[in-house]
Amino acid sequence: MLTIYSDDHRLHHGKSELNDGELKPCFECPERADIILDAVTESKLGDVIAPDNFGLDPIRAVHNPGYVAFLEQAWNSWTATGRHGDALPLNWAIRGLRQIEPETIDGKLSYFSFDASTPITAGTWKAATSAANVALTGAANLLQGESCAFSLCRPPGHHAASDYFGGYCFLNNAAIATQYLLDHGATRVAVLDVDYHHGNGTQSIFYERSDVLFVSIHADPLQEYPFFLGHVDERGDGAGEGYTANFPLRWHSSAPKWFDALDAGLQLIADYAPDYVVISLGVDTYIDDPISQFRLETPDYLEVGSRIASLGLPMLFVLEGGYAVAEVGRNVSNVLVGAAAGN
Amino acid sequence: MLTIYSDDHRLHHGKSELNDGELKPCFECPERADIILDAVTESKLGDVIAPDNFGLDPIRAVHNPGYVAFLEQAWNSWTATGRHGDALPLNWAIRGLRQIEPETIDGKLSYFSFDASTPITAGTWKAATSAANVALTGAANLLQGESCAFSLCRPPGHHAASDYFGGYCFLNNAAIATQYLLDHGATRVAVLDVDYHHGNGTQSIFYERSDVLFVSIHADPLQEYPFFLGHVDERGDGAGEGYTANFPLRWHSSAPKWFDALDAGLQLIADYAPDYVVISLGVDTYIDDPISQFRLETPDYLEVGSRIASLGLPMLFVLEGGYAVAEVGRNVSNVLVGAAAGN
Repeated sequence: MLTIYSDDHRLHHGKSELNDGELKPCFECPERADIILDAVTESKLGDVIAPDNFGLDPIRAVHNPGYVAFLEQAWNSWTATGRHGDALPLNWAIRGLRQIEPETIDGKLSYFSFDASTPITAGTWKAATSAANVALTGAANLLQGESCAFSLCRPPGHHAASDYFGGYCFLNNAAIATQYLLDHGATRVAVLDVDYHHGNGTQSIFYERSDVLFVSIHADPLQEYPFFLGHVDERGDGAGEGYTANFPLRWHSSAPKWFDALDAGLQLIADYAPDYVVISLGVDTYIDDPISQFRLETPDYLEVGSRIASLGLPMLFVLEGGYAVAEVGRNVSNVLVGAAAGN
Repeated sequence: MLTIYSDDHRLHHGKSELNDGELKPCFECPERADIILDAVTESKLGDVIAPDNFGLDPIRAVHNPGYVAFLEQAWNSWTATGRHGDALPLNWAIRGLRQIEPETIDGKLSYFSFDASTPITAGTWKAATSAANVALTGAANLLQGESCAFSLCRPPGHHAASDYFGGYCFLNNAAIATQYLLDHGATRVAVLDVDYHHGNGTQSIFYERSDVLFVSIHADPLQEYPFFLGHVDERGDGAGEGYTANFPLRWHSSAPKWFDALDAGLQLIADYAPDYVVISLGVDTYIDDPISQFRLETPDYLEVGSRIASLGLPMLFVLEGGYAVAEVGRNVSNVLVGAAAGN
């Protein structure tokens, strides 16, 4: 299995996120990627390569160009107002408020985001575009015949929609890779999101399309962030009707219950018969994750990988969440080891 | 002129708000009301009385009952999860996300709010309901023949909509007083919002009705919080079409320009011929306000009051913003002195 990784991820190191009514140190930190890289290397899964640079076109194929331009300029616009700490938004256009892009940087931050947990720093743009390249390089290798690749993306991506950031995510790496596969020969791609949190960004990007099947297993949005997407009745719209499947599970759901949902999701993917499966790989389903409420344990992740591999499809694993820093490396590498063995 | 005031406002003293990417001490602080009360007393404007208790019915006449129940329970639900600092939301349901009320307190805080600058504290519910009673007592006195009253409300209200809080506001005191006037004999009420920030909550509450004319002079939402409402093309909807008028002004607009907008707004009110005028009185239009960009000076506020009084209508002043703490008392009392002299 090929792993794609870039040191650029370290350029994004947010100071704090809004949580529990306080600004706390960001759970989504550079150490996560370093520890995962170490575990992958120790597991002797295969080569670790640097990403190629695909430019902005594949990013703009998924994200609104105005949003991409905003992200590129955000830090400069923020510091031009005399502020030098991380940029965070002020307020949000919920029901009844108008979706009109303001002129000022505080207004733009508010318009293009949906939470206050995703600071923009001096290095965010470079790190986020590099993470997109990490995902794209994985996709390109699948197109060239690799059966399995791991894009060690950081910052993560699945909460980022076409035109907003949030949930530690700026560019939707998995969606960008998926679109790239479709734009280079694939007819159908399945995205399987096993992160603890619903992949609201990915769902919304592909919600009205039938060339992507989006399947997500996640904490019930009635209980858990991101709260406002991921219900079972969200099944796609228009041409996309029937091509979104959500498996929300209650807090403290057991591992067997989680695996039942995985099996149901894998069956949907098998029935869809895609050319590729892109896995949004979060391991915040782990029992000791500091911000999550599921109960998977480290050996379970071998089984996660093995069951996904049983599809017999080319697989691109794209890193999402997982915040139990000490165990995040082993949990991720176990998924990959399980997938490689079953491949 | 009668002033209505309650010490209960001190029960709401948020520790910090999200601003400039940091949690900063709340600009909306108890000292504001104390200083305004001192200035009003020094100005010998008339009696200062305590509010009557009107119960929750007049509040529920404006606010969604589910939202009112949430506010009443929020602090207990928050502390029941083991947290003891001020409660702040996590994320918001912007475009494409669903407006479904979650079960958990973090989800409910997110659902019922639109910013991260409005902490809920142990005393927020008591202070907010007391502020509503302060406004209602002013309205009741107008109904009994008073020509002018000042409801010294804190926390303020004009950013609070039927079912969300934000902008330091929980219950929309001005809207609650307005509805009370209508429910007790008034046919038409004009709300004149002279706060620096657009009164998005008040506008949205009355947007589809013709029995309330809402007129607001404020910083252009393309530049300034709350960003997502207050454009000139918002003129009301359905039966309310033509009964909302917005005068957005650019940052650094001169005082003469502001007074031109005031005159235009007063003409609309005169043409409407309401039974009462409710003034959402913010003095963050002041040149040295720490979070605002207008240029009114202390003597200008005498003129503000005098021009409003020239309508010759019974007036209820309801306190909103104003954060230059040293001058907020004189600026508010100048409006009232100007109004009393012109009355």
